[in-house]
Amino acid sequence: MSNRFLRRASVHDIVQKLSAKAVLEHGLIEEGDRILIAVSGGKDSTVLAWVLSALRPVLKRRYELAAVHISSDFCACCKQSVLKDRLAQWDIPFTDLFVPIIGRLKEGRSMNCYWCSTQRRSELLNFAVENQYNKIALGHHLDDILETFFMNLMAKGEFSTMPLFLAYRNYPVSLIRPLGFVEEAQIIACADAKGILKAACTCPYGLNSERRRIRARLADFTDNSSAVKRRIFNAVEQLMPKIHPPL
Amino acid sequence: MSNRFLRRASVHDIVQKLSAKAVLEHGLIEEGDRILIAVSGGKDSTVLAWVLSALRPVLKRRYELAAVHISSDFCACCKQSVLKDRLAQWDIPFTDLFVPIIGRLKEGRSMNCYWCSTQRRSELLNFAVENQYNKIALGHHLDDILETFFMNLMAKGEFSTMPLFLAYRNYPVSLIRPLGFVEEAQIIACADAKGILKAACTCPYGLNSERRRIRARLADFTDNSSAVKRRIFNAVEQLMPKIHPPL
Repeated sequence: MSNRFLRRASVHDIVQKLSAKAVLEHGLIEEGDRILIAVSGGKDSTVLAWVLSALRPVLKRRYELAAVHISSDFCACCKQSVLKDRLAQWDIPFTDLFVPIIGRLKEGRSMNCYWCSTQRRSELLNFAVENQYNKIALGHHLDDILETFFMNLMAKGEFSTMPLFLAYRNYPVSLIRPLGFVEEAQIIACADAKGILKAACTCPYGLNSERRRIRARLADFTDNSSAVKRRIFNAVEQLMPKIHPPL
Repeated sequence: MSNRFLRRASVHDIVQKLSAKAVLEHGLIEEGDRILIAVSGGKDSTVLAWVLSALRPVLKRRYELAAVHISSDFCACCKQSVLKDRLAQWDIPFTDLFVPIIGRLKEGRSMNCYWCSTQRRSELLNFAVENQYNKIALGHHLDDILETFFMNLMAKGEFSTMPLFLAYRNYPVSLIRPLGFVEEAQIIACADAKGILKAACTCPYGLNSERRRIRARLADFTDNSSAVKRRIFNAVEQLMPKIHPPL
């Protein structure tokens, strides 16, 4: 990842190369896949949509792309038209799915991140199954994966993290994380370079505070050194079963 | 480790219980063992000598103890008589072994931690073998083991650390770390409670700076929380092969 090409390459070339590497090494995309991209309008999922579109001529396999955005009863300010137009440029059809997340709360229960994320995840899965998508692509990047690793280590005392490929047992769907080799700083630089403006609203409940705490500490711990983070990632990657051999 | 007994117990009871647990779970001491304790005169190795002596009536197996101190040509200020007297109280014979660490440097080479530690380790092994000791006990504690884990993760990109039990292939000797379940803060409290004064000189070259850096960062990262450190240790402990089944 630190070869001469990557040092001279533009940041979107780097993001594309690293995503292709993740796809090939972890067997994330196969011929004939119907891939549903979960888009929030934020930088991560928008860059994911762009890179999956850009990789189509490169990966030498045919796959279909579509994007779904989950909007909710506490977050109606997203600039959906911006998002929809941008996806259309990349030849990715867009669906907005409304989920009444607060409306579904049982009486006396208050809103929390766990409730919101399980509601969103199950709607996403149902939508994928009903519409014959066999892969759901999520925008998690290398920093997200390291943060989850350290959160699980500190809170549960176990070595585990989000894998790049996860097959569900009870659904004919797999999760893929093609940006898993890409650092957040690279995604931000890529979004800037490609003029991708943030079109997501900020969650009014704020970023999960535990994750925010870990993010800051991990930056301190590693001096925010890309080399250190990649070395840690090399170890963490070994925790992920490579279910699909390289294609 | 957080049961009611331990919360009410005195700190030297806690150190004794945790060391017994490490000995039993990792099979560190067997009937008839001849154990050589590497003592620097510092708190860790002195508490180690005390606890191995205190565990003799508890562990229901006979084992012999002896202590060796390596003194060198750049460190001649140790209060060896204090150390020797204290060990005698615990019925542990003491030997001082002089190693000319600077004197052995090849011309043009300067002193460094790696040179010093390999010289000491090989002298220790030779002394153990020549005197028919089959185990060498080292005073590394839980914090040392976590620090090594994070140093290896950040510098080498691998999950590894110092095990509680290590058999040498080329010597009829094993290394054991009976204080592996004990936190440094507990060792300090135990040394204070037992009136164990530090009798080691401070290395004039200072503590390995990389380890010192990691120590401070790990304290920040975990909020110096005992519970968090023990959860991380639970995962790290799974990396250590339990060569000896629990006895």
